[in-house]
Amino acid sequence: MAKKASKKAAKKSATKSAVKKPATKVAAKKATAKTGSSMGPVPVDSGRGATPFEIGKDLVTKFNAGKFEIDEIGHFSDAMVSCEGLGVGLEWRGRKAVDTKNADWYTKHKIHGASAEGPYVGSTGFSVKFNMDVEVKETGQRMAMMEIGVYTVKDGKIVREEFMYGTMKG
Amino acid sequence: MAKKASKKAAKKSATKSAVKKPATKVAAKKATAKTGSSMGPVPVDSGRGATPFEIGKDLVTKFNAGKFEIDEIGHFSDAMVSCEGLGVGLEWRGRKAVDTKNADWYTKHKIHGASAEGPYVGSTGFSVKFNMDVEVKETGQRMAMMEIGVYTVKDGKIVREEFMYGTMKG
Repeated sequence: MAKKASKKAAKKSATKSAVKKPATKVAAKKATAKTGSSMGPVPVDSGRGATPFEIGKDLVTKFNAGKFEIDEIGHFSDAMVSCEGLGVGLEWRGRKAVDTKNADWYTKHKIHGASAEGPYVGSTGFSVKFNMDVEVKETGQRMAMMEIGVYTVKDGKIVREEFMYGTMKG
Repeated sequence: MAKKASKKAAKKSATKSAVKKPATKVAAKKATAKTGSSMGPVPVDSGRGATPFEIGKDLVTKFNAGKFEIDEIGHFSDAMVSCEGLGVGLEWRGRKAVDTKNADWYTKHKIHGASAEGPYVGSTGFSVKFNMDVEVKETGQRMAMMEIGVYTVKDGKIVREEFMYGTMKG
């Protein structure tokens, strides 16, 4: 390990002068080490552990089997952030805060039907399109909800989810 | 303005001691100023200027009118990052690099049909589902491409796009 680290440091040092105005040391290292050019693309991934494809596929399979809860789905980091979109504009930070949000939602809503389409797989995470038939318990109002969940994966765990709401007329 | 800033500073100072182990000063300020609790949600947005809804709606409208190019769509920052997903795992950083990537793609592919569905609108950006009928020029192969584009908006400009690829069998 020490040898590897030392080799990396030497490489970084040797290539440093070839890079013009690096935004950060990490960016400079990636750009020079992998492409040799500041114009070329740089590799990006979600780290070690389960991939966005693996986690996304499992989430979609479980959701379509009626498993909607974080505990049933798994893969979520305790430090996860959950962000709600258009018209809400809030982030819940940490698993406890997210559990509170979700419990509150289930108190007020009943799911009559739900399906997940995906996963759509990126380099830093994945996204899933959800269709839900939801009842507002207090009023009895039924809503057809369409949204895309965008999930960021880091080292085999979902660290962030952002729900983006459909705005199209049905 | 000076009075307002001073009031904010005083509020921050007064509530500071009530927050346990804030992750950052900004997070602590937001949490205490807006919710009074470190467990409650914190506001998040895309800054000033055009909103994710406005930009997303315009992008979808233009795309469905056959305007696929960055220059035709507008709204992109010169410092934009473009990330390609599953199986590619690369980011192009800066408008020049992204233009090179896109020109290369058009050299190799022909679009026979394309449609955009959305926008789906979050707090930090928006997403769009794309369906494309694409021909690989060299081989004549036709592909049905399904992907979700996830766009991050900051101060009225798209600063990042990540293309996430459909993995479902059609």
